Amino acid sequence: MTATLEAVDHVAIAVRDLRAAEEWYRRAFGAEVVHRERVEEQGVDEALLRVGESYVQLLTPTRPDSPVGKFLAKKGEGIHHVAYRVKDVAAALARLEAEGVELIDAAPRRGSRGTTIAFVHPRGALGTLIELVQEGPHHG
Amino acid sequence: MTATLEAVDHVAIAVRDLRAAEEWYRRAFGAEVVHRERVEEQGVDEALLRVGESYVQLLTPTRPDSPVGKFLAKKGEGIHHVAYRVKDVAAALARLEAEGVELIDAAPRRGSRGTTIAFVHPRGALGTLIELVQEGPHHG
Repeated sequence: MTATLEAVDHVAIAVRDLRAAEEWYRRAFGAEVVHRERVEEQGVDEALLRVGESYVQLLTPTRPDSPVGKFLAKKGEGIHHVAYRVKDVAAALARLEAEGVELIDAAPRRGSRGTTIAFVHPRGALGTLIELVQEGPHHG
Repeated sequence: MTATLEAVDHVAIAVRDLRAAEEWYRRAFGAEVVHRERVEEQGVDEALLRVGESYVQLLTPTRPDSPVGKFLAKKGEGIHHVAYRVKDVAAALARLEAEGVELIDAAPRRGSRGTTIAFVHPRGALGTLIELVQEGPHHG
């Protein structure tokens, strides 16, 4: 079978204070924010820093009962998930389903930056919350 | 100040069974191992999968009292650290030190693949264990 992963799209880091986190990356590494967005359905504010072909995605909850809010309460700040860039999220999901991998999203949905995304469940995925990201708009 | 991060060098995932983890990435995503190495001083066996300009680094402990062994015992399988590729680890460390960032490695040391590396402490780094990776051999 052919390889489906084109790049590490982003590494997502859950933080308590988005502006403080942005400032930390700026001071420590000279990394600047290239995009900010509130994603209401996921209950997060995000800031993206460009690192090569990837992003560092700083995430903070807009409400405590959101997935990232619960993550922070339970584990504190730290890496929340890894996202791989793929050409076709729907095809990647079909392959995962055929391999018996547990999915969070059975079908692609809209992500930030107008991308098309889906999440794979960490159970049975080496304890790793994996997001698949296809650039370009989601039509669905 | 100029930006120092050139790429996400790798995302490291701590796993219990390296061969099973390699097989999972092969089945799920068609990702193949491009490098295997035992790093005695860190007490790990690693397998690298190429994803664009980055790697996924699968890590398993060679002994239970190694850092990755303790991580697995405490937290189970999951993302262990993120590594950023830089042109000059020593210069990046000097900048971090000037900014008061707590370091694990005060000086660069040898990593796998003949790279030069240093780790930044997760305390005060948004809860994230960060590795800096400079390609090319370490002379020290």
